[in-house]
Amino acid sequence: MFSVTVRDHMMIAHSFQGVVFGPAQRLHGATFVVDATFRRTELDQDNVVIDIGAAAAELKAILSDLNYRNLDEEFADVNTTTEWLAKVIADRLAHRVTTGALGPSARSLTGISVTLHESHVAWASYERAL
Amino acid sequence: MFSVTVRDHMMIAHSFQGVVFGPAQRLHGATFVVDATFRRTELDQDNVVIDIGAAAAELKAILSDLNYRNLDEEFADVNTTTEWLAKVIADRLAHRVTTGALGPSARSLTGISVTLHESHVAWASYERAL
Amino acid sequence: MFSVTVRDHMMIAHSFQGVVFGPAQRLHGATFVVDATFRRTELDQDNVVIDIGAAAAELKAILSDLNYRNLDEEFADVNTTTEWLAKVIADRLAHRVTTGALGPSARSLTGISVTLHESHVAWASYERAL
Amino acid sequence: MFSVTVRDHMMIAHSFQGVVFGPAQRLHGATFVVDATFRRTELDQDNVVIDIGAAAAELKAILSDLNYRNLDEEFADVNTTTEWLAKVIADRLAHRVTTGALGPSARSLTGISVTLHESHVAWASYERAL
Amino acid sequence: MFSVTVRDHMMIAHSFQGVVFGPAQRLHGATFVVDATFRRTELDQDNVVIDIGAAAAELKAILSDLNYRNLDEEFADVNTTTEWLAKVIADRLAHRVTTGALGPSARSLTGISVTLHESHVAWASYERAL
Amino acid sequence: MFSVTVRDHMMIAHSFQGVVFGPAQRLHGATFVVDATFRRTELDQDNVVIDIGAAAAELKAILSDLNYRNLDEEFADVNTTTEWLAKVIADRLAHRVTTGALGPSARSLTGISVTLHESHVAWASYERAL
Repeated sequence: MFSVTVRDHMMIAHSFQGVVFGPAQRLHGATFVVDATFRRTELDQDNVVIDIGAAAAELKAILSDLNYRNLDEEFADVNTTTEWLAKVIADRLAHRVTTGALGPSARSLTGISVTLHESHVAWASYERAL
Repeated sequence: MFSVTVRDHMMIAHSFQGVVFGPAQRLHGATFVVDATFRRTELDQDNVVIDIGAAAAELKAILSDLNYRNLDEEFADVNTTTEWLAKVIADRLAHRVTTGALGPSARSLTGISVTLHESHVAWASYERAL
Repeated sequence: MFSVTVRDHMMIAHSFQGVVFGPAQRLHGATFVVDATFRRTELDQDNVVIDIGAAAAELKAILSDLNYRNLDEEFADVNTTTEWLAKVIADRLAHRVTTGALGPSARSLTGISVTLHESHVAWASYERAL
Repeated sequence: MFSVTVRDHMMIAHSFQGVVFGPAQRLHGATFVVDATFRRTELDQDNVVIDIGAAAAELKAILSDLNYRNLDEEFADVNTTTEWLAKVIADRLAHRVTTGALGPSARSLTGISVTLHESHVAWASYERAL
Repeated sequence: MFSVTVRDHMMIAHSFQGVVFGPAQRLHGATFVVDATFRRTELDQDNVVIDIGAAAAELKAILSDLNYRNLDEEFADVNTTTEWLAKVIADRLAHRVTTGALGPSARSLTGISVTLHESHVAWASYERAL
Repeated sequence: MFSVTVRDHMMIAHSFQGVVFGPAQRLHGATFVVDATFRRTELDQDNVVIDIGAAAAELKAILSDLNYRNLDEEFADVNTTTEWLAKVIADRLAHRVTTGALGPSARSLTGISVTLHESHVAWASYERAL
């Protein structure tokens, strides 16, 4: 099994609802350093998992829809936790793969995982099939 | 599959028995930077894998039982290798999950993995089901 | 010249005023991984620059006054940039040193610097004498 | 499941053939920081996954065959991408395991994965069974 | 004293002349992760050291002149060592500051330093006044 | 001003005397990731600060005198703190420079600094002239 990962980041504001979140119920924010991993069983004819330039560009495009925003407005009444955002980004990447934005070869990808680092001591991931 | 990871560390002394360990048969020590990962299939009603504050607190509690100690005394006649310690910590975390220390929602966790970084060029992991 | 550095972090919301900030004029947020460095010419009688436990505790106390907050409310009409926040934290640490919160030996410190990492690709520092 | 990882690096020149590679079709180069991970189900009688000194030495030996070289000469008419090189290194490590270079205990290893970091924002992996 | 740092990278081929370089006399390559630091005594009216977006863009422009190239052709008969390249990049950034490419406020900068990381175990820097 | 840094590590046991050290008064240990930085004003005729291979070898030799040891035996009645060890290593490197172990060109070095990382959240440095 092969994989390729690209890294980018976004900076957002949000707050959480529920006593489990303690002081994070207040409006605060985060830098999320985002790693997007693409998997496949065999390399394509160019010997790559994916066009890494296209992968980085699509990740940046998806993050720019969220970057420098208050997620309480983007996703009203949702707890936009690190793990939940990992799924949002993974699903949007998956959609771009299946609609061809990453090229025809990318349709041989078998899985995507996304990790969001919220600090030097905490991160969360979501992994899915394609 | 979702996961959340928290990081902490401990600083211990120990020695190893067996020629394979070379100079590490002498009493020496290590800083272990410890990453504990919790996995589950679906998020709970708060949109989290686990109460991350509780996870960090339980990891710190487990590490404080080992921190600033000579493991040759804590675990007599055992080679307290990095990989073996990863299992000790993972099993202790699993015990706390199953006894409810991490809250009722944590009982839906499906797995735990623990990675101990012993330097910038070596680390070891143990992964188990719950 | 000796120095000791401790690291912690905070997660805040804020926005900037001024066209130079582009999309960062919108309400957004950041995780700041904060490194606080203490300098002195000679070690004290315990062979340390500072009580590292006290240094970490004071840094955490200063960050907890800012953590999980909207800095637009904490510092109205101020652009709370990374470099400006580095000075706020350095000055607060300096105040604690001079008022004795870090112990009598800490009064021999000659300087403090604070670095705030806002992402994996950008950080800012402020350095001052004591 | 247990694993142990060791890290080393190599510095190579190469170029790629195919329009998908854009400016990387020109002769350029890379530092690859290489992580080699060894997996097994149970620890051996010394409580280790592998003799970590032997693992590091074998990884260094494999990398030294590639280090400070122009891969366009070593592997003519091949796109020596990061993901393809991960497989080359993993397969060479697997060969050394199966021929006994890592000791008799290493024959209980169940898998190897190799990750090559080509920058702070991109890396690739190959994972295989033993 | 304030500073702001931005990070980017480039991937180049080169070789060295001189027995001190050993196997690095062969054509090889490197990924250089490049940190550019800008210093000034007081913040400008926006509370920044520099327009960080402009700084990142200028660094990227300077690196793109070197990226994906064989430096043996770009700088014939020069040992393009990590430390020497740090000076090249710092001097080019300084030129852009003094010619106004980073805006009028940037003319109050007092110094620039550039660090090139050639691997996880080696890096080099050049620091200069403005 | 130019500098070059090389990184290595050591794993030691020790304990501290003095109530300021709290639980670290017990026998424990640490991995120290050690960065040694060499400075000079102008590059030598090879365009380097120092023979980086020789620098790495000398650092490794100095660390191997301390590695896998109980520093309570090596330095009886001394608090072998991180900052104090930074000075020990810097002074030993300086001695090797002045006695010619790093070659004749190294005698133009103007300074050395050594940083010891004791964990992901704490490190200490010592800087000296040559």
